Parts: sequence; C-alpha cells; structure tokens
Amino acid sequence: MDSSRDGHPHAKPAPKAVVGRVSLYLRHLESLQRQGLSTTSSDQLGEPFGIKNAQVRKDLACFGQFGRPGIGYDVDELTAVLRRILGVDKDWPLVLVGMGDLGRALLRYRGFPSRRFRIVAVFDNDPRKVGQTHQGVTVEPLEALRKSVAAHKTTLGLLCVPADSAQRVAEQMIAAGIRGILNFAPAPLSTPPHVSVTTVDLSIQLENLAYKVQESIDDGVPRAG
Amino acid sequence: MDSSRDGHPHAKPAPKAVVGRVSLYLRHLESLQRQGLSTTSSDQLGEPFGIKNAQVRKDLACFGQFGRPGIGYDVDELTAVLRRILGVDKDWPLVLVGMGDLGRALLRYRGFPSRRFRIVAVFDNDPRKVGQTHQGVTVEPLEALRKSVAAHKTTLGLLCVPADSAQRVAEQMIAAGIRGILNFAPAPLSTPPHVSVTTVDLSIQLENLAYKVQESIDDGVPRAG
Repeated sequence: MDSSRDGHPHAKPAPKAVVGRVSLYLRHLESLQRQGLSTTSSDQLGEPFGIKNAQVRKDLACFGQFGRPGIGYDVDELTAVLRRILGVDKDWPLVLVGMGDLGRALLRYRGFPSRRFRIVAVFDNDPRKVGQTHQGVTVEPLEALRKSVAAHKTTLGLLCVPADSAQRVAEQMIAAGIRGILNFAPAPLSTPPHVSVTTVDLSIQLENLAYKVQESIDDGVPRAG
Repeated sequence: MDSSRDGHPHAKPAPKAVVGRVSLYLRHLESLQRQGLSTTSSDQLGEPFGIKNAQVRKDLACFGQFGRPGIGYDVDELTAVLRRILGVDKDWPLVLVGMGDLGRALLRYRGFPSRRFRIVAVFDNDPRKVGQTHQGVTVEPLEALRKSVAAHKTTLGLLCVPADSAQRVAEQMIAAGIRGILNFAPAPLSTPPHVSVTTVDLSIQLENLAYKVQESIDDGVPRAG
C-alpha cells in the first residue's frame, strides 16, 4: 500500500481505540497551544486522561515519527499533523435527519462547529416541520436528501429519528451517498460494509457510570453534602 | 476485601473497558431471551460486536465463574447475574439539570426507562422554565436540588447546561449529594475523587467517524447512490 497517498503518513487505518486517544491528545495540544507552550512531552499529553507516557508514544507511532529525545514534541507541528491525520484540518459538512428535541439540540451544539463540523442541511418527514428555520437552516423533506448530499458533497450524517424508523431512514441516507452515520436512535443499524456507523447509546454510558457509583458507595466512601 | 459484600461476586471494580463490553453482552443476552433461547456461547455473545470468544470468557471471568464446557451459558441465569453486577436489577432515580432542547430530548429518551433509569426531577435556573411540566415532571429551581436528591435518594445526575456554567452547576449537584454525573456540556469538569463523571463528547465520536469515512474513501471504496 502506498503510505504517502493523500497526505496520510500511515499505511493502514489505526485501531478505533488509538484514534479515540489521539483525539484526546489533540484536544490537549490545542489547549497547550492556547496557553502559548511551544514544546510538550508524552507525559504531559497523557496526564489529563490518566494515560501513561509509553501508551502515548505507542499511539503516536501508529502515524509516524514525532518528537525528539530530550526535547519532546513541537506543539504547533504535532497539532497540525494530528489534525490532518484525524481529518479535522478541513470542514466536514453534515446532514441531520430528524428535527425533534434532540435534532434541535444538536443543531445548537457548540462542540460541532468548534471542530469544523457544520450542519449544512436538516430533514424531517413531518410536513409541519418542513419549511421551519432553526439556527439559519431550513428543514427539508426527506425526498430532498439525495440532491442535497450531492450538492454539498456530504459524507457524514446525524440520525436523530425514533428507534422504529431508524433503519429505514438510515437506508435512505446511505442511498443518498452518506458514508458515516452518527446514530442517536437506541436501535442497532444494519448497514453495508462501506458505511461506518457509531451508535451513541446513552444508556450504556449511564450504566457504566451507575456501576462506578455503586462500587464507590459499596466501598463506604461517604456521601457529600 | 470481603468478596461477598452486597451480593457482588467480585472483589474489586472491573476496568471500564470490561464493564462497557459486559453491558453489550447483557444487551445481546436480553435479545436472546426475547427470542426464547435458553443457552448461548461466548462465540454467540461476542459476535454482534466483533468481540472474540476468548475476550468474552476473560471479561466474564472478572465477575465469577459462568457457563459449563460443552453446554455454554444459561441465558436466564447469566442475564440475572450480569444485571445485578451492573446494578441494573433495580431502579436508578436520576436528576436532570438544564431544560434546554437537549434536556427535553433526554427526558423523552426511551433508552433510559428501558434500562430502569428514571428521571424523577428536573431543574433549571431560568424563571420562565420553572413550573413548566414536561413528560409529567415539573421544572424546579436549582435551590430545590438538595432537598430533592435527599428525598429520592438520587445518586446520578444528567448535566445539560451550557459549557460556561457546567462547572458551577456540577458543584451544586455534588454538594446536593450526587455521586455520578453524565456530562453533556462540551467542557471538562473538575470534581472530587468520590464523584464519577462521564463526559459525552459528541464531537470526539464524530471525529472518529470522520476518520473511518476518510480512510474508506481514500481506499477507493466507491460511493453508493
């Protein structure tokens, strides 16, 4: 495989867990940059997340050789490289399907534009919602999806419809050309191999939190307040 | 440490990644149960998530000895044990703070009650929102939080306020007795060690998805549609 294709210094996709951690390092690098720091270390990069320096070095090694012994990493340089690797050095247009409370909340979510994810079009099947404008974007009917995806060259979509219509709507998004779906419906999606799906299952996150809280209470840590 | 305390068959908290995977196995067990299956295997439990059978066995071994060679796992028995381990064999009352679009969406999120997480009280500082009723729950002012947490014996809270007030509101929740916070604000929280925080950072999930999509496009997988 050509390791220089398209500016990617790596030969094959890194594991999901590595990419997740590298996103965290990038977040921290950006905050160091804002603080005016010019160099950093693998200790410092992993510290806010409880990740050991050996893991940081191993993760970064998936993407190339960075840093110099005794000096560390150049903050500006590493930030730029990681942005390019993660694909956040460019704008990503998004479509959003399903304008319920969650859809409206996502349209306002400030974490997206700050990472250059921009919701360029929103869709809903409800004729009462079509034509409404939220945050400067007008709700279109689902039939307009294909044309919009082609016009904006969109590859990513947010799926915020109820669980019982999630599969059907996902298929319409895929037929329209969407390649990656962030799925908020509490339902698994069955999709072809060329499409990536990340399901945001909030109850799993709450379960994991409940487990930790239960453990800490069982261990007799006193309640505050 | 007493390994039988409080009905937990394990001696110390399992790593977060294990708990996350066990939540997935439990989801799948429940679906097998609905399909009427009485036994299952580690192959079958890991299959929908691409997890190898050796990993499934290792994860379950963190919590005790389950299954019999050549027979497999008893679906009903394993479901009941995992529910108890994860703490989802009982109701968890929740408080929700911040009644914007996201707060309203979470109040309607069907994934929570199906896992026995019940939002018992909602809070907002905006006097125009206080007194409104959504999904049968009336919005209260933040000053009422401490009394409500004590009355419902709530330990978990959903934090859905804007990023710039997240830290301040989190401190009020902790002072009121909350031990675990699911944080939706795109801001890191600084909390004492007896409090667990899980931040739902949607832009990180979108970044990881964008990375996968970019890779698959770079690899020349044709666009559908």
